[in-house]
Amino acid sequence: MTSNQPVFKKVAIFGVGLIGGSFALALKQAHAVQHIVGVERDLNNLQRAFDLGVITQQETDPAPAVEGADLVLLAMPVGQMQTVMESIAPCLSPTTIITDVGSTKQNVVRLALEYLPTHLSRFVPAHPIAGAEKSGAEAASAALFQGRNVVLTPLAETSVAAIDVVKKAWELCGTVVRQMPAATHDRIFSAVSHLPHFLAFALVDELAGRADAAEFFRYAASGFRDFTRIASSSPEMWRDICLSNRDALVGELENYQEQLQVMRRMLLDSDGNALEELFGRARDARNEWLANSKAAK
Amino acid sequence: MTSNQPVFKKVAIFGVGLIGGSFALALKQAHAVQHIVGVERDLNNLQRAFDLGVITQQETDPAPAVEGADLVLLAMPVGQMQTVMESIAPCLSPTTIITDVGSTKQNVVRLALEYLPTHLSRFVPAHPIAGAEKSGAEAASAALFQGRNVVLTPLAETSVAAIDVVKKAWELCGTVVRQMPAATHDRIFSAVSHLPHFLAFALVDELAGRADAAEFFRYAASGFRDFTRIASSSPEMWRDICLSNRDALVGELENYQEQLQVMRRMLLDSDGNALEELFGRARDARNEWLANSKAAK
Repeated sequence: MTSNQPVFKKVAIFGVGLIGGSFALALKQAHAVQHIVGVERDLNNLQRAFDLGVITQQETDPAPAVEGADLVLLAMPVGQMQTVMESIAPCLSPTTIITDVGSTKQNVVRLALEYLPTHLSRFVPAHPIAGAEKSGAEAASAALFQGRNVVLTPLAETSVAAIDVVKKAWELCGTVVRQMPAATHDRIFSAVSHLPHFLAFALVDELAGRADAAEFFRYAASGFRDFTRIASSSPEMWRDICLSNRDALVGELENYQEQLQVMRRMLLDSDGNALEELFGRARDARNEWLANSKAAK
Repeated sequence: MTSNQPVFKKVAIFGVGLIGGSFALALKQAHAVQHIVGVERDLNNLQRAFDLGVITQQETDPAPAVEGADLVLLAMPVGQMQTVMESIAPCLSPTTIITDVGSTKQNVVRLALEYLPTHLSRFVPAHPIAGAEKSGAEAASAALFQGRNVVLTPLAETSVAAIDVVKKAWELCGTVVRQMPAATHDRIFSAVSHLPHFLAFALVDELAGRADAAEFFRYAASGFRDFTRIASSSPEMWRDICLSNRDALVGELENYQEQLQVMRRMLLDSDGNALEELFGRARDARNEWLANSKAAK
């Protein structure tokens, strides 16, 4: 490649929804890609992705989609990961780099070990940290990843060259690329993402199950709205995340349950000093995070 | 009064911060008040309230402030409620209506029974449901209460005439006025407001207390930001709310802890159907609430 040529001649994207579509648009905006093949089971969404110029070619068959691709992005729901890996494994060339966008990483690594055993040196698991409330190709935006973190969790078998290619692609999308073991990733995200989702679903469901639920909801205001925003997320996606990162999530849930027990004791003791101190520590920690974090903006 | 005269000749407001100041501005905008006396311990804020035209007169002495007032609004922190009630009790005329804005109501009712025993027929406890992240007279706005709920929790002793006056005042501020017993109010708000605050403080403090907290916060994103927004609230205010509504909050906390135990079991059993069903119920309930609620906007 010379500097006048795009970084990628052909990229194949499985699942051209919000994440896959935004990856495509960001690479196009960076003039980093020549052809983008979209692969989807949802033919309406596939057509929209093409009509909107998110992809340059539609495919439903994995074989021609990945043929000659420099990069394959697995951006469909995690529930389809095994099927897609099985279907592309025999078609991948020895130079094609494979990556994904799953919210949990140890499960993807396990699937790759089983279904892409001859491609592990070119498999780079990744997790872009970007909001996903809207979905579909129509929601895709070249700016989605700007300033966001992407975490790569390479396997022991992954080559440095493959990591560099995926890192380059995400940097072209405007992200900050970080790297850590899959287990560390899953532990961190069970705490800062999966548990909060679990807790928000829990609160809304507990309220909604009451006979006089309407009377409670009538008085819920903006604090409740923001606290529970993530409880409007996809039940299917969060079922998959909870199951695939179960052990880490159970561990975080138990930490949290212990914290609630300690705080319940403070309430029962009417220990105002301890409550105020704890609330103050939490407020200060959050405000410091807000001041320092791009992701919080 | 004729229809050309303002509803109130003189209103005295103890605590001209966000809530007290916005009440003043809303009444002024409705041409419903002639004089507004502000009373504050914070002399800087009192001066700002005067300079900004929120009040027409500054006072630090309660006696001249409440003298001849049609309406007295107690909008200072709940921690000062007893002191202020004691100080105004001997100065209140037999026609002055008294109301407050506390987030918990049974404690205010208890204080009124003890410290305003000869004024109970003219005491109307109230709780305007409006955000309070910013504070001080500078944050006050005539529009703060527009479309919001205000809950009145009259005592058995409160007169219908007094309720009507306070209802009128809040309607002039653009609110929807509702009425319920103080105990019902405290139960509802412990569930939809106090518990979520408690849970958000708990999550942030639990994370912040870890040796590797920075590594977790680095990956916290917009879901975490919204879930924990209310953990940036005032520690002093939330200590007071938790203590004054302790019994209801403990009850709601225990309900929630039971819900988490049930959901922990679903995780341990890898019961994807149960999790998806629960998440779906929560999402649907929240989306229905969002669609119907003005407060959610």
